[in-house]
Amino acid sequence: MARLVMKFGGTSVANIERIRNVAAHVRREVEAGYQVAVVVSAMSGKTNELVGWVNECSKFYDAREYDAVVASGEQVTSGLLALTLQEMGLNARSWQGWQIPICTSDAHGSARIESIDPARLDAGFARGEIAVVAGFQGVHEPTGRLTTLGRGGSDTSAVAVAAAIGAERCDIYTDVDGVYTTDPRIVPKARKLDKVSFEEMLEMASLGSKVLQVRSVEIAMVHKVRTFVRSSFDDPANPRPGTLICEEEEIVEQQVVTGIAFSKDEAQITLRRIADKPGVAANIFVPLAEANINVDMIIQVVSGKAENRDATTDLTFTVQAADYERAMDHLRKHKSDIAFEALEGATDVVKISAIGVGMRSHAGVAARAFKALADKGINIRAITTSEIKFSVLIDKDYTELAVRTLHSLFGLDAAA
Amino acid sequence: MARLVMKFGGTSVANIERIRNVAAHVRREVEAGYQVAVVVSAMSGKTNELVGWVNECSKFYDAREYDAVVASGEQVTSGLLALTLQEMGLNARSWQGWQIPICTSDAHGSARIESIDPARLDAGFARGEIAVVAGFQGVHEPTGRLTTLGRGGSDTSAVAVAAAIGAERCDIYTDVDGVYTTDPRIVPKARKLDKVSFEEMLEMASLGSKVLQVRSVEIAMVHKVRTFVRSSFDDPANPRPGTLICEEEEIVEQQVVTGIAFSKDEAQITLRRIADKPGVAANIFVPLAEANINVDMIIQVVSGKAENRDATTDLTFTVQAADYERAMDHLRKHKSDIAFEALEGATDVVKISAIGVGMRSHAGVAARAFKALADKGINIRAITTSEIKFSVLIDKDYTELAVRTLHSLFGLDAAA
Repeated sequence: MARLVMKFGGTSVANIERIRNVAAHVRREVEAGYQVAVVVSAMSGKTNELVGWVNECSKFYDAREYDAVVASGEQVTSGLLALTLQEMGLNARSWQGWQIPICTSDAHGSARIESIDPARLDAGFARGEIAVVAGFQGVHEPTGRLTTLGRGGSDTSAVAVAAAIGAERCDIYTDVDGVYTTDPRIVPKARKLDKVSFEEMLEMASLGSKVLQVRSVEIAMVHKVRTFVRSSFDDPANPRPGTLICEEEEIVEQQVVTGIAFSKDEAQITLRRIADKPGVAANIFVPLAEANINVDMIIQVVSGKAENRDATTDLTFTVQAADYERAMDHLRKHKSDIAFEALEGATDVVKISAIGVGMRSHAGVAARAFKALADKGINIRAITTSEIKFSVLIDKDYTELAVRTLHSLFGLDAAA
Repeated sequence: MARLVMKFGGTSVANIERIRNVAAHVRREVEAGYQVAVVVSAMSGKTNELVGWVNECSKFYDAREYDAVVASGEQVTSGLLALTLQEMGLNARSWQGWQIPICTSDAHGSARIESIDPARLDAGFARGEIAVVAGFQGVHEPTGRLTTLGRGGSDTSAVAVAAAIGAERCDIYTDVDGVYTTDPRIVPKARKLDKVSFEEMLEMASLGSKVLQVRSVEIAMVHKVRTFVRSSFDDPANPRPGTLICEEEEIVEQQVVTGIAFSKDEAQITLRRIADKPGVAANIFVPLAEANINVDMIIQVVSGKAENRDATTDLTFTVQAADYERAMDHLRKHKSDIAFEALEGATDVVKISAIGVGMRSHAGVAARAFKALADKGINIRAITTSEIKFSVLIDKDYTELAVRTLHSLFGLDAAA
């Protein structure tokens, strides 16, 4: 029998009525002949409540205890959904991460799944049981302690379970009905994509499109798990298919650009007139890395060689907005080592990215975008490009204008 | 180093402030040199919330899923207390039932502890860790499924852990400051007992004194675990000792009667004019037992032999109030098998019991009580006696009068 993984997030299991709706979706697939594993998150709000208590108890908490507390949210939902399925006359049982087991690293709070033994789930399927798996959690077997995978980790659980049990596909049910060409709240003409490649989805997820967690897309890509993003708010009797995330080859009509993503979670830092010599970049970025601050875009502009005796340069880079203050403090503290003349920062910036595997075979895609933005009077502060995407850093005020401009430019607008 | 188990119930861990208070109690004992295992219940209200959800999902629920859901409450508290202890600079970690493991039967919802392997807790003590154990829960090892011990089960967890790790004593912290000669709300002159024997406590617990769960007293008695009942609301810096539950030999000044208990949770059923011949009692009580209805007091009065051709008798017995309607229905259904003429019932009754190991060596204790109650005009509907207690069933209206009468009669009133 073909197997299917269905994943439901916090808003989809927010209360008993919503859990019944989830059960109706599951019943449909069981009646269609699938062996089903359902992966569930905590009821919405519960994880925040638990995290709030942890923070109240302890400022610099032991992540092992954080995990013991927070993993309880998914435990509750798994039991409640199993009960609800049973009440519908279906054969179901709950599985905690440690019962399967879902083995993870010991990076408590953001553990990585290392292996999932399918034997017990297989035996359950053989008994005709629906497996209701607590998402987000696992166990570090050498210590026997509970672990969690970090926010959005239930997506990762779902895709990893799908890979482990050889599921035909993994359906991620969310509160949106699929992956869009861009955020429909900003661009009303945004279109739902029928298909998107793993590589593109990976870029979108890492650029702040909140539909799927990056790690889950990575696992889906490596294990070639056909993954659908679809809505749990659809009528269980007549749901829409959502967006399929799949291999590039499966997508026949490939656009040059598939989607426009943006991230307001950026901050820009500029160091003025640092020495333009080897080792300077290391002086700056090694301490930031040690402080666990991720640097994204980096631009180095040689300037003023003619006027100054010693060559100096300006260096601009971006960090996550949450790390901005810490990064600035860090740089001020290391001012003498780095030897910059001035330190400037800006948090009113946004990173806008265009993503598409079609860029590989089309030259000049980014250049067309730069021109279109310039025509609207939008100043580009920084640029990065990769094989299948390019990003520009601009003033936050121009977010909507820039996104709409690129969305139209690359032919993504829905027909009126 | 001497070991100590400390148990805190739901009201003692109701919120983070109360958990900090618990941690202060634990710190005191650690500083006194003990290796401490703390057993915690769910935050008050949480278990009811979880049980409410289970009932909402499923009317006739799978007790295995009930356990998976409900066990999460203690998981949360164990992690939060470990964090709070760490925040105080103490070395602590949480233990779920399955991590130790606390092995139980598979009677989900009311599982019995079968064994506790102390090896991992021992290793934790050797590392200088306080063990924070999730109460109420265990694991059925053959299936690997979570189990719970039933309401009040955390007391049982505590005493069983104390026995397993060879603790010097087990301190049960509650919202009362000890065991009283009777309910102080009914008898203002009730006195706190300094010591009470296991046997007496067992009778008190089974008679509805809610201080400790019966099963926990049984385990304490079998394993000779010196158990204190004391208040978590005392100043952690200067707590009172509470009541010690210990072996009879340790109690020097033994009273004839140690305490007066009462249970309003009773109902009386009388069958009029049933045949007075062998097999009739079995006809009545076997079906009730099969319906899981416990019968407590039984009185059979031979009547009317002179007037009737066939000998008949009246039979009176008591059941728990919760089982009353079910028992009456059952008897009506089996009317032809049992062949009674009339069925009568009363729920406005109360069972009042006097308990004391001293009764073993003092004759006429019950007789004195019957006379004292008769002198107050209280009619006794039924009587049962055992080696260390006697009970009378009377009209509920006389509860306070009867309890006060017996409390005075046996010299239990506190000095004014």
